[in-house]
Amino acid sequence: MSKVLIIGAGGVGSVTTHKCAGLSDIFTDIVLASRTLSKCDAIAHEVLKRTGKKITTARLDVDNVQDTIAFIEKMRPDVVVNLALPYQDLPLMDACLATGVDYLDTANYEPPNEAKFEYKWQWAYRQKFEDKGIMALLGSGFDPGVTNVFCAWAQKHHFDEIHTLDIIDCNAGDHGQHFATNFNPEINIREITQRGRYWEHGEWVETDPLAWSMDYEFPEGIGSKKCYLMYHEELESLVMHLKGLKRARFWMTFSQQYLTHLKVLENVGMTGIEPVNYKGQEIVPLQFLKEVLPEPASLGPLTQGRTCIGCLLKGIKDGKSKTLYVYNICSHEAAFKEVGSQAISYTTGVPAMIGAMLMIQKKWHKKGVWHMEQFDPDPFMDALNIHGLPWKAVEL
Amino acid sequence: MSKVLIIGAGGVGSVTTHKCAGLSDIFTDIVLASRTLSKCDAIAHEVLKRTGKKITTARLDVDNVQDTIAFIEKMRPDVVVNLALPYQDLPLMDACLATGVDYLDTANYEPPNEAKFEYKWQWAYRQKFEDKGIMALLGSGFDPGVTNVFCAWAQKHHFDEIHTLDIIDCNAGDHGQHFATNFNPEINIREITQRGRYWEHGEWVETDPLAWSMDYEFPEGIGSKKCYLMYHEELESLVMHLKGLKRARFWMTFSQQYLTHLKVLENVGMTGIEPVNYKGQEIVPLQFLKEVLPEPASLGPLTQGRTCIGCLLKGIKDGKSKTLYVYNICSHEAAFKEVGSQAISYTTGVPAMIGAMLMIQKKWHKKGVWHMEQFDPDPFMDALNIHGLPWKAVEL
Repeated sequence: MSKVLIIGAGGVGSVTTHKCAGLSDIFTDIVLASRTLSKCDAIAHEVLKRTGKKITTARLDVDNVQDTIAFIEKMRPDVVVNLALPYQDLPLMDACLATGVDYLDTANYEPPNEAKFEYKWQWAYRQKFEDKGIMALLGSGFDPGVTNVFCAWAQKHHFDEIHTLDIIDCNAGDHGQHFATNFNPEINIREITQRGRYWEHGEWVETDPLAWSMDYEFPEGIGSKKCYLMYHEELESLVMHLKGLKRARFWMTFSQQYLTHLKVLENVGMTGIEPVNYKGQEIVPLQFLKEVLPEPASLGPLTQGRTCIGCLLKGIKDGKSKTLYVYNICSHEAAFKEVGSQAISYTTGVPAMIGAMLMIQKKWHKKGVWHMEQFDPDPFMDALNIHGLPWKAVEL
Repeated sequence: MSKVLIIGAGGVGSVTTHKCAGLSDIFTDIVLASRTLSKCDAIAHEVLKRTGKKITTARLDVDNVQDTIAFIEKMRPDVVVNLALPYQDLPLMDACLATGVDYLDTANYEPPNEAKFEYKWQWAYRQKFEDKGIMALLGSGFDPGVTNVFCAWAQKHHFDEIHTLDIIDCNAGDHGQHFATNFNPEINIREITQRGRYWEHGEWVETDPLAWSMDYEFPEGIGSKKCYLMYHEELESLVMHLKGLKRARFWMTFSQQYLTHLKVLENVGMTGIEPVNYKGQEIVPLQFLKEVLPEPASLGPLTQGRTCIGCLLKGIKDGKSKTLYVYNICSHEAAFKEVGSQAISYTTGVPAMIGAMLMIQKKWHKKGVWHMEQFDPDPFMDALNIHGLPWKAVEL
């Protein structure tokens, strides 16, 4: 008997709910709550149709910590799976602390109106979670999440020391739209327009936004794609936990078309977050832009192709140098067929379910606030193969 | 003693008012009217400062024909110079008919919500203007306007037959902005996104928007620029009035940057004229875009470089083939220094003043509705040299 409370009814929330519903011996009761009840109900309807599992839905504004505490007290879940916006990590951690319930998320806390991508605010909860005897698992999506587990697994089984890490995130899918963001355009555009950053010899090195790129040859027919160096949050914990690490970088593919559209929208001020006066009314350009762009959820049935996300690791094993590439390939069409969402949501929503499962099963359970690579990677790696995200490891 | 009524207080209205004010023996009284009195007053202030001439200003909504009639009755001008939006040509022609006052404009009538660029609505006033004993001069800007006069002058002095005409409009200025339109973005974007059209052997041939381009080497150090074939309204009358014409085309330069920005904004739907729902409110994307783009007037002090607009004519003189290029080069900085507007407004506003002057002096005066090339070009060509738009004619 276990109960999971899932917060957030976007694409990822839908995937996680579907995957939990498919494991009803582990997730006996499922509650899905978000600001918009109709979105929860639509997901519940789909889940019932696809899996036969009936779930509970509720309207909940998690920015209101007192309401959330009351709701958790009433529901008494074993774990809260936070798939809302990054702004809502801290209010939800507060509510978990007050009620003594375990917490899991897929993205680091972000202060509104700043693009920081830092864990410091959530690390500040370590002692409080330990004292309360509860656990927080941070970043249980794909990247962060599975990429951290790939590193931990490589360190456990394949390396004495890992010297360089390149996380490479490729979306080789095509939705046939001129321009669209795969998730909330506001978060997406913030992430991409920030300055680049990588870690080398104990220090962070900054670059201009998307200033560095490389062509990488992806496996299984995906082929060569241009990848851009970006900062990504899992680097912050991985550089602390990988033995002997000398350099860590994160890369993401973007098409020239995507970058041109983004640049133009930046140039004309349509990505701005300062309000402009329109006929006597204050309107934030980025929020208006969101209204004319396709709804991320509408891309599900349109997207074809695959994602390929993995870790390229170089280091030493038994005195010899070694290069290992660990990766998953996920098909947009297959994901949509299975759960009604494309691979971007699928690759985040499945690991969130696996994290929650390992916490409920106490296979991953420690008091305090933890990153993915701080646990035994083996049960997670097994679960990926079973639950729709099979991986491969290739020595290069 | 003469009185001119200028309608419209944009960049062109400002230039025409300045130029009329500099000729106070011809334009004894000047009245400037527009929907926004403060804009008229600001221009009056600048005109007084620069020329010492005091002008009259008034608030007038020319969409209201009865108000306009009353205003014209009160003012009794010799000519109405229409520098408002193209939607307002017909209401103003109606008001001129009712009051028996001559009319001049710089752009053909446009029905709202359609991009037609056709003269038929204004040609329908021919008989009425003739019966009333008054004159309408259509398109007395640069293109249409000076380009028509260049053709008439070439026909009068240089050709027995003109076989091909290419009007080439080059703005080699740079305002240092990522993207901005030189006049009302709504009209500008409409014009550019329409299908291309040229005239050959008595027929109109259509092209996709901006599908045809050529590199043209502009004189006096401007150099080679890419020019795009577009439809432009002066072609409609010129193909009727040039003897022996076999082909007529219009070309305009656009930078790759301008076209990329325009394409992206079209792609994402920001140039759309259908309202979208934004937080319960209907907002037209193109109108919101206008708010984030730089004000055309703000470009005046920023714009550097020159425009080069001219006619490339090929034909026969005394049995021999001949190629003639007639053009004007106008400096953005010099125009701004003289009248506080850059060359785009200057090249339209000066010919409007010249047209009004020739009408008042009765050098150009016939009952009915007329195009520029239907008058003797010589006094207009002389006036261009005197009043800031000197031209050259080069045999190639």
